[in-house]
Amino acid sequence: MRATTIHAPRDIRFSEVPDPTITAPTDAVVKVTAGCICGSDLWPYRGENDINPGSTIGHECVGVVEEVGSEVTSFRPGDFVIVPFDHCDNTCAHCRAGVQSACEHLGFTVSGQAEYALVTQAEGSLVKTDEMPDASMIPSLLTLSDVMATGWHAAVAAGVRQGGTAVVVGDGAVGLCGVLAASVMGAEKVVAMSRHEPRQEIARRFGATHIVAERGEEGEAAIKEITGGVGGDAVLECVGTDQAIKTAFAIARPGSMVGFVGVPHGVELPVRRMFQRNVGLAGGMAPVREYLPHLLKLVLDGTIDPGLVFDTTLPLEQVAEGYRAMDERRSIKVLLQP
Amino acid sequence: MRATTIHAPRDIRFSEVPDPTITAPTDAVVKVTAGCICGSDLWPYRGENDINPGSTIGHECVGVVEEVGSEVTSFRPGDFVIVPFDHCDNTCAHCRAGVQSACEHLGFTVSGQAEYALVTQAEGSLVKTDEMPDASMIPSLLTLSDVMATGWHAAVAAGVRQGGTAVVVGDGAVGLCGVLAASVMGAEKVVAMSRHEPRQEIARRFGATHIVAERGEEGEAAIKEITGGVGGDAVLECVGTDQAIKTAFAIARPGSMVGFVGVPHGVELPVRRMFQRNVGLAGGMAPVREYLPHLLKLVLDGTIDPGLVFDTTLPLEQVAEGYRAMDERRSIKVLLQP
Repeated sequence: MRATTIHAPRDIRFSEVPDPTITAPTDAVVKVTAGCICGSDLWPYRGENDINPGSTIGHECVGVVEEVGSEVTSFRPGDFVIVPFDHCDNTCAHCRAGVQSACEHLGFTVSGQAEYALVTQAEGSLVKTDEMPDASMIPSLLTLSDVMATGWHAAVAAGVRQGGTAVVVGDGAVGLCGVLAASVMGAEKVVAMSRHEPRQEIARRFGATHIVAERGEEGEAAIKEITGGVGGDAVLECVGTDQAIKTAFAIARPGSMVGFVGVPHGVELPVRRMFQRNVGLAGGMAPVREYLPHLLKLVLDGTIDPGLVFDTTLPLEQVAEGYRAMDERRSIKVLLQP
Repeated sequence: MRATTIHAPRDIRFSEVPDPTITAPTDAVVKVTAGCICGSDLWPYRGENDINPGSTIGHECVGVVEEVGSEVTSFRPGDFVIVPFDHCDNTCAHCRAGVQSACEHLGFTVSGQAEYALVTQAEGSLVKTDEMPDASMIPSLLTLSDVMATGWHAAVAAGVRQGGTAVVVGDGAVGLCGVLAASVMGAEKVVAMSRHEPRQEIARRFGATHIVAERGEEGEAAIKEITGGVGGDAVLECVGTDQAIKTAFAIARPGSMVGFVGVPHGVELPVRRMFQRNVGLAGGMAPVREYLPHLLKLVLDGTIDPGLVFDTTLPLEQVAEGYRAMDERRSIKVLLQP
């Protein structure tokens, strides 16, 4: 099949690789309708994570079931499915507790930017639509494989509540989805910290009531002003850098939680400040399957339109340009069509 | 007055110092009925914290109101009061949110191991009993100034719930109070990690259903066994060292919280593990005033008897021996009588 492969930092290729095949009875192969590039794909792209040269890359996709293993009984070829980036059996103790991202049979999509993707725990992971969705729905459905569920997880972990103030650190696609999640959950004030006009615009469409463009101490002062001096009731950290974490803890009110979903890179948690101010931290890799049914309903009934995070659509063969556009922040998020 | 002073590591003296006096209208002076030595007093004693030579030490006490400032209207000389170690106005935004340990007018007891103690926010901080308590009640009432409230805070922060499994790391007085808190909150299994027979005994009396004497990987394996392989539903970290924190995160089930109340010393939080396993951290300095009314009721009606943590009682002039006994772990917690 034709797939995206990574060979070295900034060396993304459109290559011919072997088709994924069913090797376990829990497997399924999905023909990808749409995939996309995640902010976390930029870590290896920028050389910050190890690279296995020539390996496929991409963990977000939706598509049509092509083939299933013998133990996959709820799906059959032709079903349109959303593929959580983290595969789970949805039956183990961790899955039953709603933490599918710690499943005993955890697996990951590894060729989401390709023609076909393997799902290692298809029965527990996949969620299908009743009918083949309209093309206009594909972007929003695609966000449910990771980015929207991840923004939702940040809001859950931060303890967003009706009537409170939620502050979102990070204006990438995850941060924007965090804004949308906090808004849907009923936060009265939703503050997006963003310096970029197009991202601010999407944040507003997603329900942001306030935009804070300042960073550092000025940004912290702006949040204090908005929150009557006490800090945010819930802070969503959607970046993963040390600076973003420091900002999150600086603006969180005592007794609140920082919900973090950006894969941490070079982060040193300010443990003494956390202690002195009683500000906690929760979150991590999103249990996509846990939130998927609810989020799918919200997309299908038109409550949310998270597909707006895609400001660029490219044919799969131009994937390298997609990475460049996201790396240079020319694009918020790139949708790829095989 | 006669008070405990610290002059250098391991140099604790029983000294004559000026009496505390009312200098602000929110002040009160309390004649100490009983004070005690806290595990956190051992940090400066052992030279791990800075020392201001000659300063008084001790932040836990109960006693009788001696004198009040003009704005203190709910208390008068002769009232028996519990003095939270962290003083608060109990009216600011943080206090109203139940985080009195972040009060805008935060203060601390600084001469709890002395004849008199100053309370900087008496109206908001103090809680009195209806009548002069019997001498037999003093130890349990004294624990409410810090150690019992701190153990309770660990259980709240860890999210202890009815029917779940709570694991307590640390068998100091705070850890033992954490066991008691988890038990009162209805945890079905309460696991005390302790290697010391006398502490195990108190843990059992406080409601521990399991004792794990092993440490390191063996201790982690024992917790896995008790929890059916998934880890603790709530983990109370009651030490503050890096090793204790590492153990806490190793035994917490995915999706759970570690509640921490030991002042962190040399702690580096395992942020990537927290992310990968979705194990959060909450807690910090206990908002004693928040829990005090409820805990006082539990003590007075006989539901809890946290005073059992005191295994040594000394006259105040022997305070130096009290520090030695706790430093050498010959004593769990020392009560001092002026």
